[in-house]
Amino acid sequence: MRVAELSKQSGVSVATIKYYLREGLLPRGESTGPNQAQYGERHLRRLQLVRALIDVGGLSIAATRDLLVYLDEPGVSLGQRLGSAMGSVTQVKRRAVEGDRGAARAIVADLVERRGWEIDVDDPACDNLVEVVAAIAAIGGTGGDALLSEIDRFAVVAEIAARGDLEAVTRPAEPDAAVETAVVGTIVGDTLISALRRLAQVNEAGRLFREG
Amino acid sequence: MRVAELSKQSGVSVATIKYYLREGLLPRGESTGPNQAQYGERHLRRLQLVRALIDVGGLSIAATRDLLVYLDEPGVSLGQRLGSAMGSVTQVKRRAVEGDRGAARAIVADLVERRGWEIDVDDPACDNLVEVVAAIAAIGGTGGDALLSEIDRFAVVAEIAARGDLEAVTRPAEPDAAVETAVVGTIVGDTLISALRRLAQVNEAGRLFREG
Repeated sequence: MRVAELSKQSGVSVATIKYYLREGLLPRGESTGPNQAQYGERHLRRLQLVRALIDVGGLSIAATRDLLVYLDEPGVSLGQRLGSAMGSVTQVKRRAVEGDRGAARAIVADLVERRGWEIDVDDPACDNLVEVVAAIAAIGGTGGDALLSEIDRFAVVAEIAARGDLEAVTRPAEPDAAVETAVVGTIVGDTLISALRRLAQVNEAGRLFREG
Repeated sequence: MRVAELSKQSGVSVATIKYYLREGLLPRGESTGPNQAQYGERHLRRLQLVRALIDVGGLSIAATRDLLVYLDEPGVSLGQRLGSAMGSVTQVKRRAVEGDRGAARAIVADLVERRGWEIDVDDPACDNLVEVVAAIAAIGGTGGDALLSEIDRFAVVAEIAARGDLEAVTRPAEPDAAVETAVVGTIVGDTLISALRRLAQVNEAGRLFREG
């Protein structure tokens, strides 16, 4: 299909499609003449994935590009691509924050031990959480201390989510679909949990109000 | 204290503090001469809150400003300020997305009924979730359908989180602290859940790998 048809089928404007092509988020179509190219199902699928990560997941253009690299790696096993994509997903959400990394790493190490998670605290997988904990500790009295005092509660919630996540990822038969499901489930799943948590808070507040 | 001392105590650069002052995220200090102002504990506290929302929570400058308005409303009860701040928090995470709102609202309505949540689906509190569901539905086969088929699982996770959230918010004795705890717990708490979920996934993947 031509770019106009790709735009129509995806609901993404031609200008945005051209921007994604320039930024390397979408592979070029097959050239059929000067300023003309043909796009296929693969482009439509990739376009929907990019929209999901950026619009719903809130990733930046750069973070999305970093992540897509792992999805396209040729000759690499599903397990490796999944691992790399998940590692990238972990890093892209890291933010520049102030705070004491040493103290934060100790808090994470204690939590990992209490939860019985079999994770090495020096593993890069822990770095993102250490950054987040350091940043929250730096907030201090303005809600940060209160949040950290409840980190176990949040960890239990995360455990319950993760258990289902892994089941969902191992379900698709096709390797590419498994990686996409993992990436969308993780990034967009965060947004879904956040929106649902807001609504569950409203429900819970109403319940407390009626009881009280 | 002078702006240099405020910078030192908060770990936020003078340039950033001046930017926040211009953008209305931080109230002006008490003027003590031309180009001189004094800042107090209230400014330090607000600065830490702003950093938490922007650096850790990932809010934009505009979204942060919208949210702070509700924290500062004078002569309004704690309950009202909490409700307004939470409503603002819900809206600031909304993103521009394509998708069928009608179908999404039906999905949310069914979910609310299955979960027994006492929420009117036409309530603005539902709008954010409807947007997110519409966007996920638009992704379709690229992981979106898989994610929506598990919306109940995510809702259970959200319920568990929300139950603790409300307990945490109703704990502080001081009204201002309660509102701050609610805002930080909600916005920064999303980031914490996300980071913990990533680590719990690594743990869970390792467990499955050892078993399999």
